[in-house]
Amino acid sequence: MAKLNSLDDLLVHELQDIYNAEGQILKALPKMAKAAQSAELKAAFETHRDETEGQVDRLEKVFELVGKRAQGKTCDAIIGIIDEGKEIMEEFKGASALDAGLLSGAQAVEHYEISRYGTLKAWAAKLNLPEAVRLLDQTLQEEKKTDQLLSRLAESSLNRKAA
Amino acid sequence: MAKLNSLDDLLVHELQDIYNAEGQILKALPKMAKAAQSAELKAAFETHRDETEGQVDRLEKVFELVGKRAQGKTCDAIIGIIDEGKEIMEEFKGASALDAGLLSGAQAVEHYEISRYGTLKAWAAKLNLPEAVRLLDQTLQEEKKTDQLLSRLAESSLNRKAA
Repeated sequence: MAKLNSLDDLLVHELQDIYNAEGQILKALPKMAKAAQSAELKAAFETHRDETEGQVDRLEKVFELVGKRAQGKTCDAIIGIIDEGKEIMEEFKGASALDAGLLSGAQAVEHYEISRYGTLKAWAAKLNLPEAVRLLDQTLQEEKKTDQLLSRLAESSLNRKAA
Repeated sequence: MAKLNSLDDLLVHELQDIYNAEGQILKALPKMAKAAQSAELKAAFETHRDETEGQVDRLEKVFELVGKRAQGKTCDAIIGIIDEGKEIMEEFKGASALDAGLLSGAQAVEHYEISRYGTLKAWAAKLNLPEAVRLLDQTLQEEKKTDQLLSRLAESSLNRKAA
């Protein structure tokens, strides 16, 4: 394997990481929607699943822009975050706090993505890839919006339990 | 083991998760400081290590406030994020892009913490634990500041490489 050195290499490395992460998130979201108690949260997870498909498409376009085949590389971080979510789903199955736990896991996923897309966008800008910057920023804004929506749902879920 | 059900249970569950995560971060930061190429980044990792000790102390106070012994529970998410950082350290050892890679990993850690402390703070507020809210918010603000500092360092590291 060629020695990795430059920012181009790093960009490809992280694109592969997040490409794999998005694939894992696509598989996890229907399970989270199934587990969710409130109809609102189920719908939010389903909508985000569709959105994630668009994000995968955008990543494939970015791979094209850097002249690489779209390819994932096991993302240990997202495996860990999703595993913690699964643990909550099992330990709090049928519990009053289940949705709060699911929301917490989903927000950890969003923050991982916000961090990664923010970095990728900065690197793409430095590498003079304006079309890649545009695509990565589009996804970054979606992730931030999703995180805000999840915060609102968390707030209303807590208020419902307290009522 | 008693069936977990309520928001109190969830709060303790997540406190144990982040307590373990902070312990792992305490061990990882000196390695990241050693690996960093720029003096500025080394110093940032060292400062954040000291800050993390204070954050562990605060978590111990929160455990006290909820009447539980401070105890960790393996945090798979942080293991995954730190493992990805180690991979970057190995693959990009001596490379021009190493610091950019280290910064990316460190920002993923910060975002994980921002997400968890944000959730914990909201739960503590709902559970009428104002002193816990204060402590958790203090750490949350530190993590946000650290993330902003890392963004600035990332920007200046990229500009240096491009110069």
